[in-house]
Amino acid sequence: MSFKIVKAEDLKSFCINVLKALNVPLEEAEITADIIVSADLKGIDSHGVARLNRYVKRLMNGWVNAKAQLKTLKETPISILIDAGNSLGQVAAYKAMKICIDKAEKNYFGFAAVRNSNHFGIAGYYAVMALKKDMIGVCMSNASPLVVPTFSIEPTLGTNPIAIAIPTSKEPPFVLDMATSVASIGKIEVYQMLKTPIPAGWAINEKGEITLNADTALYCARKLKRGGLLPLGGLAETGGYKGYGLAMVIDVLTGVLSGAAYARYVGEPTDPKPSNIGHFLAAINVNAFTPIEEFKKRMDDLIQIIKNSAKANGCDKIYIPGEKEWEIEIQRRKNGIPISMKIIEELKNLANQLNIEFSL
Amino acid sequence: MSFKIVKAEDLKSFCINVLKALNVPLEEAEITADIIVSADLKGIDSHGVARLNRYVKRLMNGWVNAKAQLKTLKETPISILIDAGNSLGQVAAYKAMKICIDKAEKNYFGFAAVRNSNHFGIAGYYAVMALKKDMIGVCMSNASPLVVPTFSIEPTLGTNPIAIAIPTSKEPPFVLDMATSVASIGKIEVYQMLKTPIPAGWAINEKGEITLNADTALYCARKLKRGGLLPLGGLAETGGYKGYGLAMVIDVLTGVLSGAAYARYVGEPTDPKPSNIGHFLAAINVNAFTPIEEFKKRMDDLIQIIKNSAKANGCDKIYIPGEKEWEIEIQRRKNGIPISMKIIEELKNLANQLNIEFSL
Repeated sequence: MSFKIVKAEDLKSFCINVLKALNVPLEEAEITADIIVSADLKGIDSHGVARLNRYVKRLMNGWVNAKAQLKTLKETPISILIDAGNSLGQVAAYKAMKICIDKAEKNYFGFAAVRNSNHFGIAGYYAVMALKKDMIGVCMSNASPLVVPTFSIEPTLGTNPIAIAIPTSKEPPFVLDMATSVASIGKIEVYQMLKTPIPAGWAINEKGEITLNADTALYCARKLKRGGLLPLGGLAETGGYKGYGLAMVIDVLTGVLSGAAYARYVGEPTDPKPSNIGHFLAAINVNAFTPIEEFKKRMDDLIQIIKNSAKANGCDKIYIPGEKEWEIEIQRRKNGIPISMKIIEELKNLANQLNIEFSL
Repeated sequence: MSFKIVKAEDLKSFCINVLKALNVPLEEAEITADIIVSADLKGIDSHGVARLNRYVKRLMNGWVNAKAQLKTLKETPISILIDAGNSLGQVAAYKAMKICIDKAEKNYFGFAAVRNSNHFGIAGYYAVMALKKDMIGVCMSNASPLVVPTFSIEPTLGTNPIAIAIPTSKEPPFVLDMATSVASIGKIEVYQMLKTPIPAGWAINEKGEITLNADTALYCARKLKRGGLLPLGGLAETGGYKGYGLAMVIDVLTGVLSGAAYARYVGEPTDPKPSNIGHFLAAINVNAFTPIEEFKKRMDDLIQIIKNSAKANGCDKIYIPGEKEWEIEIQRRKNGIPISMKIIEELKNLANQLNIEFSL
């Protein structure tokens, strides 16, 4: 595959221009662009500009509301329920997390449940926002149904991601950002593109058998709605019921609790209507329990213990969650982001279509 | 294996007498006995009276303090940090959860971090306490190091369980209670007893290879400290780094945040000293976001959607987390609990040793 190296700022400017051309207000275009490009910076290419096309399509068709106003439905000193009015998921989750952090500054904890939202990119971005204030950040979302519950062959739950960011002292921050399926749909799309078999245990076909074929996995999950992605843990024997349980908990906190859609009510990215996705966000001020400096010193120690533990044969490094993405981000901020020529072409077409300048 | 059928009340009375004989105050003996027997009622036999012996040994030797007083180290209207004074884990977690529920009744949320505690039995018990007040309950604990981080062969993290209980209307409550390893240590002990190979993906040996031998898995995790239990997801390729990340998050919330031990500082059950285990508990009053009756109706709907989704070949039922244990509990409350004769003998010896009546 051939790539073009693009600077993060240029990519961000381009995204802002695209979103502005679609009537997204400047401030919200900047927020959304920053979140999209942060995925590319971290090497989570499936959630970066590669996905801009889909957002554009939904905005153009009015399936996402470019000028949505967030509405507070219920509020306490430490919690808020928000109706996002079918806004971009990025805008809803960003603003909700800001509110969580404000509340946690005053009252140690802040929680937000969000209904009537859309796909928001990488969950990790919002969790990481809490780190600037030395807080623990948590972010979850539900998503369109692609994952089969244990003993079922019908994709009823989303890949429902959860991200948890934890402050550290000298070590890079701990950032766990994971789908509750074995693999995210974006990862399977990468295997499809590369025409490589997926590892055993990621997905089942319509007969409930493990499939190694990425095409089959995606077709079963998205179109056939029989077979699909396995929850973290895989089949029942290897603990798949735990991943299924976690995906369901996230559906409860993001969908059932907020009044958003849940399970198979959540809209597919291609559905010509609002997705009604739900999010749940939290900021926890460590000082409620322990002085933050003590806490961060202990975090560094925990990380050192794990990193210095005995390595498996052939492994020269034990990674802390988020560390790989951290290393990639340092590289890509310095050297630019490799964007595949296929995506560059897509972005060029987008620019033509929207009649904006293309300078990538 | 031969069994004796014992009534839950008789088993509980016996446990109370054992604990009283070891100087545990009556009220705390009753709390602890109820938690122990609730595991037997739910079919989680590894955490029931089969474990009484270990608690007794630790109490007798003073490695657990029968007369410990809990101390509040820091408190806000919605959170508390508790030093359990090396009490029985059951007593610490039960009292901490009570406080969380009280706080959530007044202020919608309640959180407790507990240090200087011990093994507390099944995490699910404490999460379920919140259901009586129609709240969401959460409970986590760290544990002695048996689980290998991804790319490591050294067991550095505990099986760190998390339990989440969610109220429903007509459906049985949702209760997820899971170790963050593929399988709990108790489950592997059952395979060891039955001399049956464990499924591929549960554990690795000292070379980092998958082992099917329960003896090897337990020896590597407990004694050799090379090889051990795999985190949920198994090896890296099937998402093991996610289970490892979750186990680490739980270690942070229970250990790092509370000031308890974490990672390999957590004491082994056989260590002749306090374990300094940490817990984290939460109660969430749904009314902070959504009227509880609406929420519970939606929970029933979510459960129905999943239960009625297409079943895999050969599966006649899709279970909701906690449903199996719920069914077993109904049976065992009615018909009694089958206790293996080996355990009955152990309990009889215990009674002799403590000079108390044995009437099981």
